[in-house]
Amino acid sequence: MSPNYTPGQSASISKTITETDVYLFAGITGDLNPAHTNEAYASTTRFGRRIAHGMLSAGLISAVLGMQLPGPGAIYLSQTLKFLSPVYFGDTITATVTVQSVIPEKRRMTLTTVVANQDGKEAVKGEATLLYPETTA
Amino acid sequence: MSPNYTPGQSASISKTITETDVYLFAGITGDLNPAHTNEAYASTTRFGRRIAHGMLSAGLISAVLGMQLPGPGAIYLSQTLKFLSPVYFGDTITATVTVQSVIPEKRRMTLTTVVANQDGKEAVKGEATLLYPETTA
Amino acid sequence: MSPNYTPGQSASISKTITETDVYLFAGITGDLNPAHTNEAYASTTRFGRRIAHGMLSAGLISAVLGMQLPGPGAIYLSQTLKFLSPVYFGDTITATVTVQSVIPEKRRMTLTTVVANQDGKEAVKGEATLLYPETTA
Amino acid sequence: MSPNYTPGQSASISKTITETDVYLFAGITGDLNPAHTNEAYASTTRFGRRIAHGMLSAGLISAVLGMQLPGPGAIYLSQTLKFLSPVYFGDTITATVTVQSVIPEKRRMTLTTVVANQDGKEAVKGEATLLYPETTA
Repeated sequence: MSPNYTPGQSASISKTITETDVYLFAGITGDLNPAHTNEAYASTTRFGRRIAHGMLSAGLISAVLGMQLPGPGAIYLSQTLKFLSPVYFGDTITATVTVQSVIPEKRRMTLTTVVANQDGKEAVKGEATLLYPETTA
Repeated sequence: MSPNYTPGQSASISKTITETDVYLFAGITGDLNPAHTNEAYASTTRFGRRIAHGMLSAGLISAVLGMQLPGPGAIYLSQTLKFLSPVYFGDTITATVTVQSVIPEKRRMTLTTVVANQDGKEAVKGEATLLYPETTA
Repeated sequence: MSPNYTPGQSASISKTITETDVYLFAGITGDLNPAHTNEAYASTTRFGRRIAHGMLSAGLISAVLGMQLPGPGAIYLSQTLKFLSPVYFGDTITATVTVQSVIPEKRRMTLTTVVANQDGKEAVKGEATLLYPETTA
Repeated sequence: MSPNYTPGQSASISKTITETDVYLFAGITGDLNPAHTNEAYASTTRFGRRIAHGMLSAGLISAVLGMQLPGPGAIYLSQTLKFLSPVYFGDTITATVTVQSVIPEKRRMTLTTVVANQDGKEAVKGEATLLYPETTA
């Protein structure tokens, strides 16, 4: 069945980000920036304690795009990210993607992408473009 | 000591991306897109086999920025990412960040950011902006 | 029951060291030395490919001491380590500890500690001293 | 460029050690000693609660040596370790290596190696010998 996307259509996933998530992410990427892995240092920064990597939040955007909207088979072309506020260990974040525009003849779509915490405070905001598959999985 | 950044200045880190990296990244972000974790599916796609998450490559960009240039204490403002070619399990990727412009009175810098594989093929390309600390750690 | 240790008494554990072990170890310790995580680089070294961290092998020595001989309740005082040959991904290594001398009135013992691969080639060799508990668990 | 090392030269890395680090380390090495993974048991010991593996602290020494001083390309010959005090979950430890002596014609160097917690209390102390590369990377 040929998919039919409408501006405003959205999807989201949520997860509580733990110390374990951040430490594994640090190990995988090699990003042991003290802001993420050194509490003694982090307590002296403007954030007051260790924070999650911005790219970990971005990973949840990628998860919604790749698994839900537009889902498997999509080709990720680009993503912009503005880092607006920190995500702390224990925060429950929600990544929401919303269709902004579609060019059916090119199977190309643009979505707004937002990651916000449990209080609705936006942590990461941006825009994604993808090619979507001709048929849904 | 007040840092002094010059356009053209660059730093990089490299890592061989393994199945373990991709599977842990999938677990942390919840991005179990079959392109990354389903070999039977992936073998039917244009890529021919499972590929790493684009955001995992982006994570190495964040690592260089946060640990080397400009390093600890920097505030990550934004990042753009174009996904140009896939990273396969076993590829050795290098994330390189290069200072493009600096506004000293705002302690703001823009860097070009590139992730390329062992053959120099660019996988991810974009631009980062950060506020750098007044003094180096 | 008061334990009774005899010189020559030994214990060992074995494990096949995988890429996953090495990558997790790198993430935990922050030791992303390219010898361990960069195949393109490692192929140019005298070892020809990525090798496991020496301290990962040492971790198996600690495991035998802490779990078997002398086992839980022991206090680890010191360890010497000579790194004799590399451990490659896929090698099955065995850590063996052998009682060398005991000073019962101080509940202190010295053991020789060896980690060897599946061909009996010694990778790590050294000596451990511990205080053992008055009674076995 | 041929490296030039001077006695007194030093480098260090820091990390807050978490339960996650210790549990992953336990899984990798098989060292599930109850002192590290059994809170009910650990609360009855002289330490009062679970402690990190000494070899995990030693892993941070290896990280500084292999990544900073002398850095990639060095050959790790030996390490001595005295375990002086426990590292608890949540402690921020710093591994510092300091050049003690250099034999340029043999490209051999000896360094003192110390791991201390956020209060400066020494947890692990010892000495490392390495062969350093003729040229820096």
